[in-house]
Amino acid sequence: MAIDIEALKKQAAKAAVDLIDNGMIVGLGSGSTAAYAVISLAERVKAGLKIKAIPTSEQTKLLAIRNSIELTSFAQNSTIDITIDGADQVELSSLNLIKGLGNALLREKIVARASKKLVIMVDERKIVDRLGNKSPLPVEIIPFGWEVTQKAIEKFCPSSKLRLDKRGKPVITDSDHYVLDCLIPQINNAEKLDQDLKLITGVVETGLFIKMTNIVFVATESGLEQLQSK
Amino acid sequence: MAIDIEALKKQAAKAAVDLIDNGMIVGLGSGSTAAYAVISLAERVKAGLKIKAIPTSEQTKLLAIRNSIELTSFAQNSTIDITIDGADQVELSSLNLIKGLGNALLREKIVARASKKLVIMVDERKIVDRLGNKSPLPVEIIPFGWEVTQKAIEKFCPSSKLRLDKRGKPVITDSDHYVLDCLIPQINNAEKLDQDLKLITGVVETGLFIKMTNIVFVATESGLEQLQSK
Repeated sequence: MAIDIEALKKQAAKAAVDLIDNGMIVGLGSGSTAAYAVISLAERVKAGLKIKAIPTSEQTKLLAIRNSIELTSFAQNSTIDITIDGADQVELSSLNLIKGLGNALLREKIVARASKKLVIMVDERKIVDRLGNKSPLPVEIIPFGWEVTQKAIEKFCPSSKLRLDKRGKPVITDSDHYVLDCLIPQINNAEKLDQDLKLITGVVETGLFIKMTNIVFVATESGLEQLQSK
Repeated sequence: MAIDIEALKKQAAKAAVDLIDNGMIVGLGSGSTAAYAVISLAERVKAGLKIKAIPTSEQTKLLAIRNSIELTSFAQNSTIDITIDGADQVELSSLNLIKGLGNALLREKIVARASKKLVIMVDERKIVDRLGNKSPLPVEIIPFGWEVTQKAIEKFCPSSKLRLDKRGKPVITDSDHYVLDCLIPQINNAEKLDQDLKLITGVVETGLFIKMTNIVFVATESGLEQLQSK
């Protein structure tokens, strides 16, 4: 029997949404699993749950509006109670993440940083022993002089590619930046790499989310698993 | 006799432009003294000097185009031979700088980083024993969630203000960011402060230029002085 990945994602999303209580300020992640969470949250709102949400992308914002989820902003609320988001990779031992394949890493990281609790929803394919390897590390950079920024990054990521859209044009993030996808066979010290990259002039943010995750819901073929930060 | 600040600035600008040789790729700074340098450079180009320039702001770009200075880009040239720029403060002992009162710090820093030589032109009022004090430190930040970024910065700059234009709207930089002006009485460890601030999610770049300056031309009442990095 083929695995129904979409059903697994929905299951993880529902578990995360179940943690949301009345009156909470909720950070809404981006990407396909986060979209399931928005739909699931909308059902609870329709049933009477009162929350306000801060979306991490224009896409999630539209989805929330279409599903009648009340939005708020950092001008009104500087603290978020819980953020629910997907991830591209979750390191099993540390719960450190790689995010940003969906172009929303910067806003996701700003929202995660402002959150009391970060809950990640993934299917089991995203769990890895060590970050890197199959998944590139996205690094959001300033378009102006991106070629020299790429050169400066080489020391840490010898092989990186400017992310292009289907027409071959650079992908532009919601914050009007470019993304470099850095191929790193194995990230042995994610915290140091994150800092080394972030310190480079022209780098806005990296897709490494270090020591930010509280809970991970992992949907597996044999059911839902929960990982908790130590 | 009143000091003619503008004449002093022009004098410093001319000295910097005199360092430019045929065939060079030249980074053009932003601000009032850099504008004098562009005019001075244009005169040399008219007289036969062959150079190509990379401007650090839309304003400088326009000024260069109006003065028939040939432009190039990082796509064509990833190394700049010399960058000439102004500064808001120059620390006498280290030649470390505060820049960004003119909203162009990010592009200026990207250009300076790509330059073999950074030449700074200032009048004597900009020379200080210790950075900080009278001049705020500009920090370029992401508009999304700027309120939480300001909060995260508080640990290092307890007092910061969002930079507003004359109509009271946030100033938008050429890269579509906001600027926080951080008041710090005295910056004792500029290198560490630069790193601490840059590592904050939401911070794009700081106005601290550490160990980047090669030469400073200082126009004083009693003539031109030259400071050289050790």
